[in-house]
Amino acid sequence: MMLKQTLASKAMLSRVLASLVAALAAVSVSAAPYQGIDDIIKASAPADWRTPDPENLLYLELPAGRVIIEMAPAFAPNHVANVRALAREKYFDGLFIYRVQDNYVVQWGDPDEKNPRPIVHAKPTLPAEFSRPAAGLAFDVLPEKDVYAPEVGFSGGFPAARDGEKGSAWLAHCYGMVGAGRDNDAGSGGGTELYAVIGHAPRHLDRNVTLFGRVLQGIELLSSLPRGPAPMGFYEDTRLRLPIRAVRMAADVPPAQRTGIEVMRTGTATFDHIIESRRNRRDDWTKVPAGHIELCNVPLPVRLTP
Amino acid sequence: MMLKQTLASKAMLSRVLASLVAALAAVSVSAAPYQGIDDIIKASAPADWRTPDPENLLYLELPAGRVIIEMAPAFAPNHVANVRALAREKYFDGLFIYRVQDNYVVQWGDPDEKNPRPIVHAKPTLPAEFSRPAAGLAFDVLPEKDVYAPEVGFSGGFPAARDGEKGSAWLAHCYGMVGAGRDNDAGSGGGTELYAVIGHAPRHLDRNVTLFGRVLQGIELLSSLPRGPAPMGFYEDTRLRLPIRAVRMAADVPPAQRTGIEVMRTGTATFDHIIESRRNRRDDWTKVPAGHIELCNVPLPVRLTP
Repeated sequence: MMLKQTLASKAMLSRVLASLVAALAAVSVSAAPYQGIDDIIKASAPADWRTPDPENLLYLELPAGRVIIEMAPAFAPNHVANVRALAREKYFDGLFIYRVQDNYVVQWGDPDEKNPRPIVHAKPTLPAEFSRPAAGLAFDVLPEKDVYAPEVGFSGGFPAARDGEKGSAWLAHCYGMVGAGRDNDAGSGGGTELYAVIGHAPRHLDRNVTLFGRVLQGIELLSSLPRGPAPMGFYEDTRLRLPIRAVRMAADVPPAQRTGIEVMRTGTATFDHIIESRRNRRDDWTKVPAGHIELCNVPLPVRLTP
Repeated sequence: MMLKQTLASKAMLSRVLASLVAALAAVSVSAAPYQGIDDIIKASAPADWRTPDPENLLYLELPAGRVIIEMAPAFAPNHVANVRALAREKYFDGLFIYRVQDNYVVQWGDPDEKNPRPIVHAKPTLPAEFSRPAAGLAFDVLPEKDVYAPEVGFSGGFPAARDGEKGSAWLAHCYGMVGAGRDNDAGSGGGTELYAVIGHAPRHLDRNVTLFGRVLQGIELLSSLPRGPAPMGFYEDTRLRLPIRAVRMAADVPPAQRTGIEVMRTGTATFDHIIESRRNRRDDWTKVPAGHIELCNVPLPVRLTP
């Protein structure tokens, strides 16, 4: 109980501090000439960036190049561990992208339900990790209201939502988010079939599927694939199936073959500045600044390691 | 004044009636077994559908097929008239899709700023039509709150927003919406450079660019194009430019070569049923119905004429 109270007070304190920082940032912004995202990134400090743990970085190697996915063990520890295990037993190598539904998702894994590829060490299915306790989770609140959740914001670099009453938090289905497909049973997923969001955020999927990561680089290799036929986008023409060369943990790839990548820290003054610069664009082109920003329109900057 | 009052009362009456219909629909829905969108469309009546006026239908003919755009003269009458004029003087024929920015827009027109294609009858630029008076506009309110506008809903089949205080209404930048690109000056667009939204709704563009239509069919021919390089997606490699075979008004195409297409009427009990079926999915797969739906996640059904 004592621990919970301490956590709650800390969370409250950090929110108050975050509000103060944002307010100060807003003041300094309105006094200073407008800076767009490129300017803010250029002026950012090394401490504004973090290098993702290579144990959480997944390389999806396609014929056209590398898609880099950062996994979020804070939200889906078991799915992250299982996808790691699947990558390590090379489960995905030679499997396929077999579904591309316009304005929705790209899905990959084993399209052969009759003769499924055997799984050696990983688990074929896992209990759902649709949400987690909010307690103990760093969460930087976006002050904007949201259609789907009582509260939204960012946690460890991922777009997320929170329900204070229920004390739960979950990742949000923004563009580029990655999850573990499942059948009707909540526990029928586990990481063998994965999907990435390539359309307008299907937020109704929140808390209905286990999201476990986000594409940091290479989403365009997925989003530009030919669409499968409506309504679900499965490639009925199996010749469209795109072979997966390999899925690897960055940690298992020789350092020289890794992609040096940095992600902007959320919950920083620099990130708040970016949000504000997008909320109220004061560039020459914009005539009516929006005054607000929706969770999934907040850019989460990624760059090659300078 | 008398006329305005009559209009206002009619609008009020129709809103009250719409609310009643929605309430009745909700009652019957909760009593009936759940119907998904396919079921609702199957059970729909011919009166739930409208055939767009061929004078408002634009065919964008690409090597891979036809993209069909419905124009919205209620929101941007001058732009619609000008795009019609441009189509009729075959302005776009042989021009290019020259910009594909991931999670944002596809843009087409004349990429050659130094030797621009001459315009014969149409106007090169037009005053902006970013918004219009709300008075006299049929508007079916979506009860959900919205991050970007005081009120959102549907008008004549298009996703739209409204500001009651300011008495203005405008089209919303949902997936598939089509607008007229412009330079920094608000009046520098006009219809010679067009774009379609192919990503998470960039709603900050609302009231900053003239939207004048929506892709009814063939968005996947645009959304699956190779992305141009960041940040803006312009095809620096000009070999990527995709030639436009032709842009025609459906009215000018011989009937045998037209695509028979119908659009579900918004503001009907059937459409309200679809919204509710998406707001609260009660299918076997869904574990946590969202309870809400965001404007740009509402499907606007289109079908080939039965």
